[in-house]
Amino acid sequence: MMRRALALARRGIGRTSPNPAVGCVIVRDGVIVGEGWHRKAGTPHAEAHALRQAAGQARGADVYVTLEPCSHYGKTPPCADALVAAGVARVFVGMVDPNPKVCGRGIGRLEAAGIEVTTGLLENESHFLNEPFIKHVTTGMPFVILKSALTLDGKTATSSGDSRWITNEKSRHYVHRLRAAVDAVMVGIGTVLADDPQLTVRIPRGRDPLRVVVDSTLRLPGTARMLSQESTSATLVATISGDEARCALLCSAGAEVVRCASRDGQVDLKDLLTRLGARGVQSVLLEGGSTLAGEALRAGLIDKFVLFYAPKLLGGEGGVGLFGGQSVMRMDEAFRLKTGAVRRFGDDIMVEAYPEEACLPG
Amino acid sequence: MMRRALALARRGIGRTSPNPAVGCVIVRDGVIVGEGWHRKAGTPHAEAHALRQAAGQARGADVYVTLEPCSHYGKTPPCADALVAAGVARVFVGMVDPNPKVCGRGIGRLEAAGIEVTTGLLENESHFLNEPFIKHVTTGMPFVILKSALTLDGKTATSSGDSRWITNEKSRHYVHRLRAAVDAVMVGIGTVLADDPQLTVRIPRGRDPLRVVVDSTLRLPGTARMLSQESTSATLVATISGDEARCALLCSAGAEVVRCASRDGQVDLKDLLTRLGARGVQSVLLEGGSTLAGEALRAGLIDKFVLFYAPKLLGGEGGVGLFGGQSVMRMDEAFRLKTGAVRRFGDDIMVEAYPEEACLPG
Repeated sequence: MMRRALALARRGIGRTSPNPAVGCVIVRDGVIVGEGWHRKAGTPHAEAHALRQAAGQARGADVYVTLEPCSHYGKTPPCADALVAAGVARVFVGMVDPNPKVCGRGIGRLEAAGIEVTTGLLENESHFLNEPFIKHVTTGMPFVILKSALTLDGKTATSSGDSRWITNEKSRHYVHRLRAAVDAVMVGIGTVLADDPQLTVRIPRGRDPLRVVVDSTLRLPGTARMLSQESTSATLVATISGDEARCALLCSAGAEVVRCASRDGQVDLKDLLTRLGARGVQSVLLEGGSTLAGEALRAGLIDKFVLFYAPKLLGGEGGVGLFGGQSVMRMDEAFRLKTGAVRRFGDDIMVEAYPEEACLPG
Repeated sequence: MMRRALALARRGIGRTSPNPAVGCVIVRDGVIVGEGWHRKAGTPHAEAHALRQAAGQARGADVYVTLEPCSHYGKTPPCADALVAAGVARVFVGMVDPNPKVCGRGIGRLEAAGIEVTTGLLENESHFLNEPFIKHVTTGMPFVILKSALTLDGKTATSSGDSRWITNEKSRHYVHRLRAAVDAVMVGIGTVLADDPQLTVRIPRGRDPLRVVVDSTLRLPGTARMLSQESTSATLVATISGDEARCALLCSAGAEVVRCASRDGQVDLKDLLTRLGARGVQSVLLEGGSTLAGEALRAGLIDKFVLFYAPKLLGGEGGVGLFGGQSVMRMDEAFRLKTGAVRRFGDDIMVEAYPEEACLPG
């Protein structure tokens, strides 16, 4: 039943931010009498949908919910109170809500009303479902995912900059799903000048994320495709330049220019991410290039790596690697990761990894 | 039953060369009455072991054998004749023997004697069991496996040459199993001068393969560990140098020096592999470094790639890549591979791949 609740929750991914994706199943005498998931921020929570469907059958029923029911008034009333009012007998919770406004209080209300509560059922799955929400609600910073496509010899492009295409269609389709699930995508100006990407979501029902270009000296052309295309989402140019004329040109082309703190003569990425977090951006997909990726890595800003390896080899020393800048000099100084999921997309291999020091469940 | 035969066959891997690894199961009325595997070249074949165990119960029985029974007199009599003499009813064959001396003749003898023969049962598994044998028996050349350990950003060492250790103990243990399964390991002189490797098999009951150093100018020191250590197998130095004094020194240190054809002022790897094949070497594990790997790749000599990715990042542009020399300049000129098995060893990921043009079953 919790697996069913997780599957329902996943339907909301990419549409619930700043809320987490949550699924709920209500079971009476072994039969599902109500289910629901949180569809969109500002609309009813998963529990409310499930309770409405269950109606009178909720009395004495078992509830499976992927995240602790909320205890506070937001845009909707507290779900913990609604469960109490419906007279449910037992509640099984995937994970405790890390939101400091909730964090155990929802469970407390249920228990105070005599409801039997079990927490931590499929906790890992509930955690991985909402990594961005958990990072943002606990730190205020967005969850940063580095995505890249590499040959098996670790190259992201040839020395002439040719990178199309490394991975197959299945992998590229999945990248669109990744994009549709995040609040923002971010690229360096070098990638924009080289590839002129659209950074939109080209799958059905995908929502375009905010596009962010790190452009310390405002080199972005007003004719860039990320500005001229049709999209429901905005383009943000992060800079340290004070060039008012360039700024006005980009603004008139539809971009928003954000002046960030400077670090080593470049946009301070931590400052930029802090600003994005303050605007409610919970997740950022870093899509290149190697300069931006190297700076983000060395600044300790990457929370997750999603690397696609295609069965190809450039076969020599040339070509562009995953990270620009200075490598570590000793193997025991290498950045250490933990391997997450490993999946195949046809002949491509996707590897998920996390910084070794990251707090993961399990 | 064929899976059982394959599992038996695997027990012989690394000990049967120049013969293939073969397993055999004899079944009567649903019960296994005999089984065996080929243990070592010059000793009885799998079918002979299984027939001895089955004795009189072989009459009317079903036989599952991973490779077509042999039809010729080698060091042992033809297994096809033995199966006919034992009066078995049906024979299930994993794959037809690619050896031109057999290739269908074993099956022909069985069928001529009225035995029902089914071929191609779990053919893929039977093929992958004996890739080196198949390559060698059909071309005379050894099957060349490139093995390497990389960080997730595709580096095999830092720019200072530090490569210890990239992968974890489970991966390194598996490398010893790979070594124990091949007839020869091969390294470039650069790797020997940098790391002074032993290239022995340090797992129980592992057989040391022939060690081959590609050393165009005879720079190998007489004190190298690969010469001084205890090992049942020889060290072969492949060179184009005519320096008799160096040659005598290395020979007195226990090495065999082989003069090869020259190509671009270096040892011609194809000539070297041809010589090894002529000596009965069916499989070569290329263990580094990047110069040798790059030359072998560009010469089209690599039959299989076994790449271990450890969850580490060097995080910049420096460091040593998988291949030395010139990369291709366009992505559509990249060397194309087919992905084989993908396995996890703890947090490490092993990827097997084959050249796209390789003839694989399935």
